[in-house]
Amino acid sequence: MFRSVGIVSRTDRKEAVQLAAEIVKALEHRKLEVKSEPKLAKYLSRPDLAVPVGKMKADMIVTIGGDGTILRTCLRLPKPEPPLLTINMGARGFLAEVEPEDALKALKQTLNGNYKMERMIKVASFLGKKRLPDALNEVSVSSLSPAKLLRMRIWKGAELVGECQSDGAVVASQAGSTGYSLSAGGPVIDPDVQAFVFTPIAPLTVFHPIVFPADSTIHVELTRPRKAVVVIDGHYQAETLPELSRITLTKSEYESSFIRFKGNFYHRLKGRLLFSQGRIS
Amino acid sequence: MFRSVGIVSRTDRKEAVQLAAEIVKALEHRKLEVKSEPKLAKYLSRPDLAVPVGKMKADMIVTIGGDGTILRTCLRLPKPEPPLLTINMGARGFLAEVEPEDALKALKQTLNGNYKMERMIKVASFLGKKRLPDALNEVSVSSLSPAKLLRMRIWKGAELVGECQSDGAVVASQAGSTGYSLSAGGPVIDPDVQAFVFTPIAPLTVFHPIVFPADSTIHVELTRPRKAVVVIDGHYQAETLPELSRITLTKSEYESSFIRFKGNFYHRLKGRLLFSQGRIS
Amino acid sequence: MFRSVGIVSRTDRKEAVQLAAEIVKALEHRKLEVKSEPKLAKYLSRPDLAVPVGKMKADMIVTIGGDGTILRTCLRLPKPEPPLLTINMGARGFLAEVEPEDALKALKQTLNGNYKMERMIKVASFLGKKRLPDALNEVSVSSLSPAKLLRMRIWKGAELVGECQSDGAVVASQAGSTGYSLSAGGPVIDPDVQAFVFTPIAPLTVFHPIVFPADSTIHVELTRPRKAVVVIDGHYQAETLPELSRITLTKSEYESSFIRFKGNFYHRLKGRLLFSQGRIS
Amino acid sequence: MFRSVGIVSRTDRKEAVQLAAEIVKALEHRKLEVKSEPKLAKYLSRPDLAVPVGKMKADMIVTIGGDGTILRTCLRLPKPEPPLLTINMGARGFLAEVEPEDALKALKQTLNGNYKMERMIKVASFLGKKRLPDALNEVSVSSLSPAKLLRMRIWKGAELVGECQSDGAVVASQAGSTGYSLSAGGPVIDPDVQAFVFTPIAPLTVFHPIVFPADSTIHVELTRPRKAVVVIDGHYQAETLPELSRITLTKSEYESSFIRFKGNFYHRLKGRLLFSQGRIS
Repeated sequence: MFRSVGIVSRTDRKEAVQLAAEIVKALEHRKLEVKSEPKLAKYLSRPDLAVPVGKMKADMIVTIGGDGTILRTCLRLPKPEPPLLTINMGARGFLAEVEPEDALKALKQTLNGNYKMERMIKVASFLGKKRLPDALNEVSVSSLSPAKLLRMRIWKGAELVGECQSDGAVVASQAGSTGYSLSAGGPVIDPDVQAFVFTPIAPLTVFHPIVFPADSTIHVELTRPRKAVVVIDGHYQAETLPELSRITLTKSEYESSFIRFKGNFYHRLKGRLLFSQGRIS
Repeated sequence: MFRSVGIVSRTDRKEAVQLAAEIVKALEHRKLEVKSEPKLAKYLSRPDLAVPVGKMKADMIVTIGGDGTILRTCLRLPKPEPPLLTINMGARGFLAEVEPEDALKALKQTLNGNYKMERMIKVASFLGKKRLPDALNEVSVSSLSPAKLLRMRIWKGAELVGECQSDGAVVASQAGSTGYSLSAGGPVIDPDVQAFVFTPIAPLTVFHPIVFPADSTIHVELTRPRKAVVVIDGHYQAETLPELSRITLTKSEYESSFIRFKGNFYHRLKGRLLFSQGRIS
Repeated sequence: MFRSVGIVSRTDRKEAVQLAAEIVKALEHRKLEVKSEPKLAKYLSRPDLAVPVGKMKADMIVTIGGDGTILRTCLRLPKPEPPLLTINMGARGFLAEVEPEDALKALKQTLNGNYKMERMIKVASFLGKKRLPDALNEVSVSSLSPAKLLRMRIWKGAELVGECQSDGAVVASQAGSTGYSLSAGGPVIDPDVQAFVFTPIAPLTVFHPIVFPADSTIHVELTRPRKAVVVIDGHYQAETLPELSRITLTKSEYESSFIRFKGNFYHRLKGRLLFSQGRIS
Repeated sequence: MFRSVGIVSRTDRKEAVQLAAEIVKALEHRKLEVKSEPKLAKYLSRPDLAVPVGKMKADMIVTIGGDGTILRTCLRLPKPEPPLLTINMGARGFLAEVEPEDALKALKQTLNGNYKMERMIKVASFLGKKRLPDALNEVSVSSLSPAKLLRMRIWKGAELVGECQSDGAVVASQAGSTGYSLSAGGPVIDPDVQAFVFTPIAPLTVFHPIVFPADSTIHVELTRPRKAVVVIDGHYQAETLPELSRITLTKSEYESSFIRFKGNFYHRLKGRLLFSQGRIS
């Protein structure tokens, strides 16, 4: 049963704000409690709805935007995360499913309980002992200086996997395997495989992408330089320190959940240009 | 407890045959029953030991050779397969562990029970309803004509994954992920991930390698041409037919087992040139 | 001045044959001599026009089809080749420029002299001393057996470039750099660079594509096995022999010439799906 | 005739400084004028020899170090550059030829005129109208922020080649084609091909490396964001500005020249781990 619903939307597009207004109206008509991120609340002239995403406890979150909006929202939501109803109003919408014109219908269906829940595992990461926010797509490590290679050792638990010299590296979940990791030459990982993929970026020495079990503990140990930047889902950044240069990655105890109606992983993949769709005979 | 031991060896290298003779002697000294593949038995002047690999029921098999020897043996052994003690006397020995000079010591350790067992899942494949021999490394599909592309549809159960046009494709196990699939751009799959990887060979359209759960059922449906050749572990071939042009792949109920002493997957990988090991600073 | 025109067309599509008929009519109306390949002549019910492509001396050739039709025609035309006016009626038309609806207009423009000529260099290849037909796109070498790697040494003149183990290899011209070589991981070569690219197919050992000057002499020496198949532009095949296992490649003294009206190399490349064109912001 | 010789050396390795001292001694014994970069001069306790690399006019430069030392030196030398005698005392020595134990012999041979000169073209680059230092290896463009893609348009003169979204891009010379560009998936370019290669780093959309003629003018136009960092040969950095976001690349009027004794491009390539050299049969 849904009693409260949070709304997160891009505000740089008029249609997005307008759709958000219609959704608020529909939800309030149903006597549901509505929360809106403060910036959107201002655009909606509804300061009474304002709640920061980091405090948005709700039974469901509606996002209006593309993958960027979803990733940014999942990074900040209180854990465990409420399920997301994702309206696609971005250029890149692999994670988002519902087209804007179907938004109100999808909302109604959801409130009536006619949907499937897609759960996606997340990557927990630690810098030394400090836990960073969970990643839905990927945790990447890059050099702080554009002219310097990163040298790193990759460990699976206590087992040395190999040494790698590259611009950086990505550890991606199944969802993230279709994003930055794919650009760097990694494989697509079926959502039913409980695994992460380690993909180096422009490696100097030969180092292939490796698919690790999601419940293993992967360590990326920076050896030279020891200062680098860790980026989570493209939105959160943390710097390593000489004395804090080991990033540990494993499966989070939390997941992100998506309200889905039709389609599936491969259908979304095909619809989103990651595979070419030319009629070539 | 080991009572009977089979021996399979390359016979084109004198040292291999000589080592086989020493192993036979050591085994018979221990009063174990020895079986040898017929060609080797002839080289050993021991026709009494001759048993074809396909009928070699034994408590353990000793292989002397490289990965080719191991793959060829596993293809033919009666199921379930006895565990393999693999002496490396080939140029490419990712699967083989024991160096020739350590062979007798390793044999003794094994008979005394001092070893670890490494189990590797295998790919079961079907051409229409006909089951082909299980693959330890990979099942590949190639055009029968060197000038013709294969067009295929990939299915995960009843779900269409995508269409691919390429020279061919490989479905590899974790062990096989370090072989032909890697050459074609596929990832390394950690042995703890229960998964197969589908890797196209020189795809005309963009089609990335995909990691599927080992217990899913993958169909490769040839659409044009419908005649192609299926190759298993580089040694077994079967041709598809216009009316029989669907290859089905899933996890076999059988495994291959390897007697191991030290090292591990990544250690073998590093030792075998699949990753470069340059001292580059 | 054009006095005689040859026509080559696919005959498996009605629209192609119909367009060929219209072109014949337009040419004869202008009092030009028309030659047609025999199969098309039969479809046109004009046996009087029949001339095999291998004997088709003419001032211009009109092709109706895709890249396959063009490659097949250029392989067989007497040398030096007449320029080609290429009507695109195939699924893959990187080389073909004119859309069917513009065919008659383009023909008129050509006869009036309003066009640009695009010249493309071709790859001459020799098996031992025997010259094979020139390639417009590429010369490839593949294993005769789908389960066997080719081992080869690559030479630039007398200089050993390296040894390669792979499924095969491609030597492509600039035009061909957008075809099979690209699928195998090779770069696009700008038509103003006088170069060929050597691209291995699924190499076992690390071997990157190499761009050689078009006027150098490249030798591909098969070392094991020595039997393989050489394929030129996907249409001509020759087998190597143990005593004849060295393929020599250099720039041909002949070119193929294309009648062009607008657009250019990169415009055609973009229009043909080799680069994705997603609106992704 | 050599009258003056400059010396540039890494000073973080004792053997390098010691070898530099021996070379100074040998040169002064021959009555040649010696110039040393100031830091090395200090280590040699020869402040009288100190001349900054940027003012080191000489008939020859001796470098002691790896590729980094050579690239850094060529960036700063007054133009036209004196030829380089390169002693390899680095981990990565594709450009360096002479091993330390052969250094004095090579020096003697050079002074006696027994050597070949290898000339390498350089990439001239402009940020708006400002000329940046010539690159021996490559000019790269990267995002200033590790979480942001670069969107760029690539032009060959006035012709739009394509649009690319990626972490960055590299334009490499033939020498540089074996470095960063190779790591990012670019081809090796034979030194006899007068060409540059454009290679994107981890492209989001499909965009293949392109080989352009060295005498063409390539523009990389940053569209979003417009702020990025241009890095030349890993040592020189310049930032683009919103109003100055177009990088123009062409062949420089200057070259770098290397004193060579034996070996060649492919021999150095093989010796330097860029191609694997496994004995795999």
